[in-house]
Amino acid sequence: MHAFDAALQLELLGPGQRSVHPARFAGQTSADYWNMVGPFGGCTAAIVLAAILRHPDLLGAPLSITVNYAAALTQGPYEVQVLPARTNRSTQHWTAAIVQNDEEGQPQIVTTATAVTAARRETWSMSDRPMPQVPLPTELKARGFERAMAWLRQYEMRPVSGSVPETWDGSLGSDSTTQLWIRDNPPRPLDFCSLLACSDVFFPRVWLKRATYTPAGTVSITTYFHASAQELQATSTGWLLGQASAQEFRNGFFDQSAQLWNEAGVLLATSHQIVYYKE
Amino acid sequence: MHAFDAALQLELLGPGQRSVHPARFAGQTSADYWNMVGPFGGCTAAIVLAAILRHPDLLGAPLSITVNYAAALTQGPYEVQVLPARTNRSTQHWTAAIVQNDEEGQPQIVTTATAVTAARRETWSMSDRPMPQVPLPTELKARGFERAMAWLRQYEMRPVSGSVPETWDGSLGSDSTTQLWIRDNPPRPLDFCSLLACSDVFFPRVWLKRATYTPAGTVSITTYFHASAQELQATSTGWLLGQASAQEFRNGFFDQSAQLWNEAGVLLATSHQIVYYKE
Repeated sequence: MHAFDAALQLELLGPGQRSVHPARFAGQTSADYWNMVGPFGGCTAAIVLAAILRHPDLLGAPLSITVNYAAALTQGPYEVQVLPARTNRSTQHWTAAIVQNDEEGQPQIVTTATAVTAARRETWSMSDRPMPQVPLPTELKARGFERAMAWLRQYEMRPVSGSVPETWDGSLGSDSTTQLWIRDNPPRPLDFCSLLACSDVFFPRVWLKRATYTPAGTVSITTYFHASAQELQATSTGWLLGQASAQEFRNGFFDQSAQLWNEAGVLLATSHQIVYYKE
Repeated sequence: MHAFDAALQLELLGPGQRSVHPARFAGQTSADYWNMVGPFGGCTAAIVLAAILRHPDLLGAPLSITVNYAAALTQGPYEVQVLPARTNRSTQHWTAAIVQNDEEGQPQIVTTATAVTAARRETWSMSDRPMPQVPLPTELKARGFERAMAWLRQYEMRPVSGSVPETWDGSLGSDSTTQLWIRDNPPRPLDFCSLLACSDVFFPRVWLKRATYTPAGTVSITTYFHASAQELQATSTGWLLGQASAQEFRNGFFDQSAQLWNEAGVLLATSHQIVYYKE
């Protein structure tokens, strides 16, 4: 089993009651996706989405999800609670939470989330954000992460531009944009959960802008899915081109907006987050 | 009383219990902010934020909010439920919902939301998104909305570029960007709730891109607040420059990203939404 699928294993504890009581799933944190003080946020978001997609009353496919990181998950068991709060003809609105027991055995909310799933129809469609022209992944060097956090080893990354600064000399970067090719390592066919995880793979923009190390962590992420399951299947184990930029760094928080295209140039997802930085 | 303050009047029904039971507030929809089939979404989002800001356990100021429009509110009373799901040292995580009784008198969730408030400290700060150079509001003509939806009359708008098409001839627009100056009509000192409402004032990007009318409505909006209460006070009744663009129109949904600067060029908020369009 791929480490990503292992990280997303969930056991249905109770199906709940539509729009009243959430369904409850039991899971276990994965050492493979460990970050500095908790799991990689993209994996945590994917766990929430996985629970929604396994709910017996699911309508349609993911359209949007917002995940708020209220506290770091600790190593061990957790419970995912997902509620189809409102089911319309072609859209379904979800609320979700991840709960862990604290040291006194009291359940505490560590993650909150909302999501929308939708049964989509073919309509007039158009992209206003063409994929940037960049070298192919095969023309670029892999970036090694042998000694870094565990979750980085679950991805193969080929930086195009805007890499982590090689010297932390405090020089001000001209812009805060990173472009990189990314895929699961080992390769795994793309699905909504892994696409969501990929929308959170970018290192903190504040490092790039300042060439200064400061602790940073995502507070809230929102990802919009533009692709259908068919388009994800067509992408399969191919590379994604990811691009991320910040707009504002102010008093402890900066924002980031990101795009993810497949190799065919289809914009699969766009994503936004607000990120804490220490100083 | 300003119509916006009247629309945000809420009566505390019960304070709830921190992290367990939501506080409940009673409100009433405002005819002044009526859109086509329900209240203007920016006003609905502001109502959720107003309830959070009036919660007795509030920590800090708004950092981010996501509001999901699960169903149109109907004219009349509603209840806002807000829960401080997790309170940390300097951040607080909120879940919220607006509930209305259906025709059978059964309470139904019409809006879901999450938000983060934060006690912010002064840190290294920088903008990576300077305000575009555009004519001053005094150099531009007002746009009249005499016969349009009620909520439009609560704003004074001075379009800079990318207005609603004058002829619906199906011609493809070169881009999906709108720039406009906006403020409350009559003017009202800016606060977090009115700033949030302003982040949802843009007409559907699909109209601009296609010069074709199709029904459209926001499904989910996320706004990030970069400004402090002091910066909003300094902005006071001044104009905001709003800018909005889409990235992808696909199978019934497009995204929109927006920025709001004050006249001094300070980026007060950035905002993102996913929007339904019919065909």
